[in-house]
Parts: sequence; structure tokens; C-alpha cells
Amino acid sequence: MSSCGSLAQQRVRDHALMTTLQRLGITIPIVQAPMAGISTPTMAAAVSNAGGLGSIAIGATDVAGARSMITETRALTGRPFNVNLFVHAEPKADEARAQNWLSALRPLFQIHGAEPPATLRKIYKSFAVDDEMLSLVLEVRPKIVSFHFGLPGADHIQALRQAGCVLMATATSLAEAHAVADAGIDIVIAQGWEAGGHRGIFNPAAPDERLGTFALTHLLVKQSRLPVIAAGGIMDGAGINAVRALGAVAAQLGTAFIACPESNADEAYRAALAGAGAKHTIMTAAISGRPARCLANAFTNWGEAGAPADIPAYPFAYDAGKALNAAAKALGESGYGAQWAGQGGPLLRPMTAAALVNLLWQEATVPTATVT
Amino acid sequence: MSSCGSLAQQRVRDHALMTTLQRLGITIPIVQAPMAGISTPTMAAAVSNAGGLGSIAIGATDVAGARSMITETRALTGRPFNVNLFVHAEPKADEARAQNWLSALRPLFQIHGAEPPATLRKIYKSFAVDDEMLSLVLEVRPKIVSFHFGLPGADHIQALRQAGCVLMATATSLAEAHAVADAGIDIVIAQGWEAGGHRGIFNPAAPDERLGTFALTHLLVKQSRLPVIAAGGIMDGAGINAVRALGAVAAQLGTAFIACPESNADEAYRAALAGAGAKHTIMTAAISGRPARCLANAFTNWGEAGAPADIPAYPFAYDAGKALNAAAKALGESGYGAQWAGQGGPLLRPMTAAALVNLLWQEATVPTATVT
Repeated sequence: MSSCGSLAQQRVRDHALMTTLQRLGITIPIVQAPMAGISTPTMAAAVSNAGGLGSIAIGATDVAGARSMITETRALTGRPFNVNLFVHAEPKADEARAQNWLSALRPLFQIHGAEPPATLRKIYKSFAVDDEMLSLVLEVRPKIVSFHFGLPGADHIQALRQAGCVLMATATSLAEAHAVADAGIDIVIAQGWEAGGHRGIFNPAAPDERLGTFALTHLLVKQSRLPVIAAGGIMDGAGINAVRALGAVAAQLGTAFIACPESNADEAYRAALAGAGAKHTIMTAAISGRPARCLANAFTNWGEAGAPADIPAYPFAYDAGKALNAAAKALGESGYGAQWAGQGGPLLRPMTAAALVNLLWQEATVPTATVT
Repeated sequence: MSSCGSLAQQRVRDHALMTTLQRLGITIPIVQAPMAGISTPTMAAAVSNAGGLGSIAIGATDVAGARSMITETRALTGRPFNVNLFVHAEPKADEARAQNWLSALRPLFQIHGAEPPATLRKIYKSFAVDDEMLSLVLEVRPKIVSFHFGLPGADHIQALRQAGCVLMATATSLAEAHAVADAGIDIVIAQGWEAGGHRGIFNPAAPDERLGTFALTHLLVKQSRLPVIAAGGIMDGAGINAVRALGAVAAQLGTAFIACPESNADEAYRAALAGAGAKHTIMTAAISGRPARCLANAFTNWGEAGAPADIPAYPFAYDAGKALNAAAKALGESGYGAQWAGQGGPLLRPMTAAALVNLLWQEATVPTATVT
């Protein structure tokens, strides 16, 4: 490869980057990750107003809640933001598995003076089968729509494209990235092993390659046809520049925003993330039924040591997980929360979302070292 | 943080980088990873002659073999190279566990017309207890000595420092990096989850944080006192620049060198790595007794699905693993080899070690994108 060849490739990459930012309507290649239950319209608007891409996650709410969140965000910013949807395979109820799970959880409920629920409910509807939510999204037409856990059907995607939405989807492997490209999605989000919260893997029952942010981002840049946004462990400007060096068009940060005042994280979660515990995260399916990276706590310890192997499917297990957390919190015990966090947690810096975006970009645009 | 502050920090980092390269006696911040059984004196010399840091691994050989490898490398290069040692905790023999393991392996031996060995031998001696090896190293005084799996005692380290050796050690977590710094080691090698081959974790029985290359490198740069060399999934100049953006002083690449003509990898291993199978690696302890990242093959499949949980300690289990591979290879079956590979395998490019170092550095020194 000649030096000229490399320079030409660099120009092609620069062009792809500018084109992607223009399509997203942003000026700074920083995406605030959608974090259901944690990110807020206020956070998303602040990030978008600062030039990045704010995100709201409507996968854990219904149509009325989603409409409210979108309306609230629009009231706070005239700039584009991202609306994120959960597109998991719809699970079948399995009452025997549910009862086995609830029996195993009973002692944890009882030490908090509570009893487990009588059964497990499917607390969220996948966007894949949610025609009402599709109608809402087509009505409000967010500039950007992103998918997590999988892809909706071709008709959904076609309708969203015709409505003018730019589409993004998470991939954790090259095979998923190919599926994303084949479905007509515009941008792929490479979610590395380091990432906090729910792992976007399409089929959690299949073997997981567990590709690190570094390896996954590089692989998708080289072998996927789509622009790549990298996610997983990115906490500052150096991190942003590292994934840009790999060829990513932007960086998506979630954990970095958890300690913002605009976040819904409770005090115990913020304290855990600010302390030594941030060094210890666990990928566990025991809380929700799907693998997710969480600060090590009482719930993840039980998941590692005491939980039955046959965890009810997402989101059935999450019904019990949320009930257990509520019972524990009522007694002042915070160790049963879904305290999602990525492996970069120890590098977190609490500040407002706008200040964080500004700082990140200031750090990222410091002239780089040239040692030759 | 002001822009001036960031520039000052950048200058400090540049200075640290130059100082580290000068201490190592190299001009290019690329380390060829020591890979016992795969890397060779020819490979190490070619890398060092090209301006990088070549490495030979003497952890899997005895004093006579080590002397021979060092002599051979010295005959091929006058430049510094790295001599790597295994410093695992010396395991106790556990005959009951060994017999249980050999019974479980018996069917795999038998389908290859063989029987398992009668017992398991401790095929390698840890440098921690190998006074003869210490004497050899003190006699030949390699410019650089590196440790994997842990650290030798203070007396060994003191003796090596007094002999003028620059010392490096692998860490997979911040706690290990602190231990490395506290022991008086000069440079820490951040081995991310993506890395191929044996994971350097000090105590494989303890919980493993499984930090990705991205998260680990960043964490050690920020919170360890030592210069950091990053390893795990790095395959080209963009990868080198990514870890430099995170603040690493150099990149260590292993898998990228496996397909070099100077490598000891057999044809089946090269073919597996060049094919679609490179996308699938597994962290398994079933082959050697310690976790190591391997191309998914018949042996790793058995490790995932059929192996007893109580694997004999490293290197006892490796005695059986090597015997099984020999039996299978005798029948032309290559799926029982220790086909170590990192998650970046699909990006491998076969060429000579010198050509690879030159290409990597050419790619890394292409002017970087500046999109602001």
C-alpha cells in the first residue's frame, strides 16, 4: 500500500464522516446513548443543543409515554435527536420456567419482607410487533430512529425510510452488522463487550463472540458496508479519538452520562458508580432475562452464584427483577438495582450533559502526538 | 481543563513515549508479542532489525533451549529484543483431579486410536522457582525481560534490574497493574480481553473482569503510574494509532505475526486463521489449564460442552492437551491444536515479519483526519 493510497483512503473516510454527520444533522461526532430509565428528554435535548446527538429510549414505555417523551424533547431542542426502540424477538410465556425462577427468588424477596409476584408478565412489547408504536413514530417522524436487540420487518423499515427517518441499529458481531446493512439501515452501532447496559445481541441464546470495542469497531469498519458508530467503554476525548483512529464516524457514550444532573439515576446508583465498585462490572442475564453489563452488586452476585440456569426470557425475568429491586429499595437496600455500567466507569466525570459534550470535544480536538 | 493544559499534558505524554522507546532501544513503537511455540528467533530478529521490538518466549522450554534461542536471536540481530518468561504460581499435583480429567478425555484419545497418558506431568517450571533460568538470564543479560502470568519475587526482580534489564509485565486489570508498578517493573503490558493466547491474569481462579483492550488500556494509562503497552486485537496501523490515542506508548501484536513465514504455526493453523473460522474464538482453559483465546475448534467445543469443571491446573492440563493434539495430528486431524488467536484474526495479512513492521508503521504515520 503506497502512502498516496493511504491518503486517498483517508480522504474517502473523511468524506464518509462528513456525510454521516450531515445526514444526522449534528456537528460533533458524539452520540449520547439511549438508556431506558436513565436518559431523559432533558439530557437528550442538552446533548443535541451542544451539537452532538441526544437520544431518548422509548423501548420501556408505551405509546402514550413515548409521545410524551418525544414532545418534551422537541420542546427543549429544535435540533435532531435519536429515538431508540427495542426490537427483541417476542418471547413465549413459559409458566413452568417462571415459577421455577420465582421460587429461586423467593428468599431474596423474603429477606426484604416481601413475596415474589404470583407470575411473570411481559412488561414490554417489542417494536417488531407494535403497530401502534409504528404509527406514532410515523406520525411524529423523528429525524433519527435506532433499533436495539434486532431489526423490525422490512415493511416497518420501508415505512420509516419513506417517512424520512435516518435509521441506525446495534450490532455486536460482523454477522449482525451484515444483517443490519442488508435490511437497509443507514448506520451501524458497534457495541463492544465493554459497553454497559443491555447487550444488543440479536439472539441471546446463541453463542456470543464477546468482541471487545476495539476488535468489533475495527472489524466492522473494515468489513461492513455501513458507517460505524463505536460504543463501549468510551469516556473521554482520547477514547473518541481512538475509535475515530479505527475509522468510526462517531462515538456513542452511555456510562459517561449517567452521573449528569439530567440523568434519572438515583443517589445509590450514582454513589456506586463514583466509588471503587465502578471497577467491577458483570455481564448478567439474571436481572432482565437478557445479558446486560451491571455494577457488581447483590443481584449480580446471586446471578453468578445462586440463580437457576434457565432464566425466563426477556422481558419476563425483568418483571421479577424490578419487583425485587422495589422491595429492597423500600428497605433502603440499593444492591438489587439494574445499575448498568460499562467497563470505563472508573473514568466517569460528573457534570452537566452540555458541559460533558463540550469537554469531550475539546479533548478530542487537542492536536495529536506525532512521534515518528 | 484549558486547551493549554491539554497541550501541556500532550507534551508530557510525548516525552514519556520518547523516553520509553529510548529505554527499549527501539525506534518504532511496535512490539511483536512473545508466543511460546509460535514466535521464533528469526521472527524476533526480523522485527528488531526493522526497528520494532522482537520477542522470544522461553517459558515453554528449559535452560538449554532458552540459551539456544537467545544465542540464535543474537546471531541474527545486534538490536535489543525481549525475552519473555512464564511466572505462574507453581501448582500442586492433584492426582484425583488428573485422573478425572484423563477419564473425560479418554474418548477423544480413543477416536484417534490412542490412549491418554497414565498421569499428568508438570511440563513447565515457573520462573518464580527456577533458579537455573534466573542464572541464565543474569548471565546473558537480555536488554528487555518480560513476565507473563504474574511476577517473580523481589530478589529476582532486584537481580535483573541490577543486571541492567528493562522489565515489563502483563496486567489484565488495574489491581494487577498496581502490583506490577509496586514490584519495580518499568513498563506494564495491558492485555485486553480480545488478545489471543494465554490470558496473563495472575490468579485464574479469581473472578476475571474481562476488560476489553479499549477499556483496560485507557484505565491503565489514566490510573497506573507506568508507561503502558497495549495488546489485544491490534492488527494494523489504525489499530496502533487507536491505542496511541488512548495514551499507550506502544502496541503489542501477536496474531498479526502468526502467518509470517518466520512463524512456527503449522499449515492447518494458518489455514484456519485465513478462513472464516478466524471470526470465532473462544476463551478456554480446557487446553492448558489456564484461560487462553483459541480459534473455535473440536477441542474448544469439547471444552465448552463436555469438559469437567475441575480442570487440572496449568501446566498439568496442557500435558494431556499436547498429547491429544499429537494423537489427532497423527491421523491428519488438526482440530485439537492450541490454535491461539485474538479477536482481530479476520484482519490478518500474511507477509514477512519485516514487511509487516514496515507496513504497520507506514499505515500508522499517515496524517490523521482532522474534522472539526
